[in-house]
Amino acid sequence: MDKTEIFETAAQMADTARSTTLALFRSDGVGLSNKSASGFDPVTKADRDCEQAMRDILARRRPGDAILGEEFGPSPGNSGLEWVLDPIDGTRAFISGAPSWGVLIALRDGSGPIYGIIDQPYIGERFEGGLGRAVMTGPHGSRPLGVRRSAALGEAILLSTFPEIGTRAEAEAFGRVASKVRLTRYGLDCYAYALLAMGQVDLVIEAGLQAYDIAAPIAVIEAAGGIVTNWQGGRADGGGQVLAAATPDLHRAAMALLAGPANRDA
Amino acid sequence: MDKTEIFETAAQMADTARSTTLALFRSDGVGLSNKSASGFDPVTKADRDCEQAMRDILARRRPGDAILGEEFGPSPGNSGLEWVLDPIDGTRAFISGAPSWGVLIALRDGSGPIYGIIDQPYIGERFEGGLGRAVMTGPHGSRPLGVRRSAALGEAILLSTFPEIGTRAEAEAFGRVASKVRLTRYGLDCYAYALLAMGQVDLVIEAGLQAYDIAAPIAVIEAAGGIVTNWQGGRADGGGQVLAAATPDLHRAAMALLAGPANRDA
Repeated sequence: MDKTEIFETAAQMADTARSTTLALFRSDGVGLSNKSASGFDPVTKADRDCEQAMRDILARRRPGDAILGEEFGPSPGNSGLEWVLDPIDGTRAFISGAPSWGVLIALRDGSGPIYGIIDQPYIGERFEGGLGRAVMTGPHGSRPLGVRRSAALGEAILLSTFPEIGTRAEAEAFGRVASKVRLTRYGLDCYAYALLAMGQVDLVIEAGLQAYDIAAPIAVIEAAGGIVTNWQGGRADGGGQVLAAATPDLHRAAMALLAGPANRDA
Repeated sequence: MDKTEIFETAAQMADTARSTTLALFRSDGVGLSNKSASGFDPVTKADRDCEQAMRDILARRRPGDAILGEEFGPSPGNSGLEWVLDPIDGTRAFISGAPSWGVLIALRDGSGPIYGIIDQPYIGERFEGGLGRAVMTGPHGSRPLGVRRSAALGEAILLSTFPEIGTRAEAEAFGRVASKVRLTRYGLDCYAYALLAMGQVDLVIEAGLQAYDIAAPIAVIEAAGGIVTNWQGGRADGGGQVLAAATPDLHRAAMALLAGPANRDA
């Protein structure tokens, strides 16, 4: 595998996604429509324009790779590599003007995600992990990514996007973890995973994710030394319930609480 | 009143606050301590350093003005003007690395807040309103502030910082509004008020605020054409329950829902 070609292709996609999304972020032309008959599932012109622009780059530079994208679904390939694209993760944040949405770009092989980018175009931050890289670049410079290794569960900061989490049982399981940590915060979308990879927070727990929501965060967090699994400790790259932790101890403690009420007081 | 002197003093304070807070944001030296015996009320070295730096500027430039600050309380003056300072609104966001915290600087007279700044140092955004100004400057340029006038309640975006809001009754009242809007998001701290002043969202509802949390948002939102009151329609500049709305119609509709369940179906 030509790593340099991978890095350059991904960077070109992320740069293109920045200009495509920023042209519509906080504009009147955001083109909001509703792709869900029930409830509120926003999709914007920016999502579609952004994914198409990234697909055009792949068609030119890496026509043998498969693609899975949120807006246009799967496209086959023959290289054994697949790009997983979420043009705007956090469309609700996007339409609210809040800079916690991001562009997610990941590359996976049969083993799962091996490289990923979480990009926040408005702030100008890029979080990149895998194939030997673990770095963030932003408006105040670059720094290596690395999880925080010091926090015990009672000192941990826990993030999730929606307070309702998922089903009632999922919300109760989340609540058991939330009751044990120092601080729980909501509303950060993919930026939550970037904060974990930066060592700012210790746990991210979500449910109901899609594969394209979590592929890039897995690559970035694993490159930063963290752990991402489903709530049972298995692979998370298919989506669903996701538990991301800074350390094995926090991962174990959170997984036990997610599994059910303790049989005895700790 | 010398408006130019006011603008320059406030800008100097905000610039100083940027460097003071950014020196500690996402650093290991954040100096977290806990000023609450029960629960979690974080105060950081950054809060104290930042407020002291702003007070030093006022002592030099405007010694006759009174000051109310979150960290060091009230200081008397004789000019009839009072600066209201919250060095880091959203300390929980600050310690989590999330850029939704801000520096709040307001000037009030007997009538209430007449000028305010909401500054987000990491992104590099400043929202300024009052004394004839209504403008945001940020990494992608400047634009005038102005609320969105088009959204009906069923299309509105509602923000609040904590899903638990306040007391149980306050949470129920909030829930009545949340059930009628298109989208409710959490976790944005003072940035929520900036998004309202930018025309990105339509309602911000919170409870349990302090005077220094809301003085600057009142000035910025009123300058942008919006409305900020308490949940009963009275003055909000003392803190407590706050309702900020883009339009009189949304304000009236939200206030009715906060007051109690409707007697008949709409």
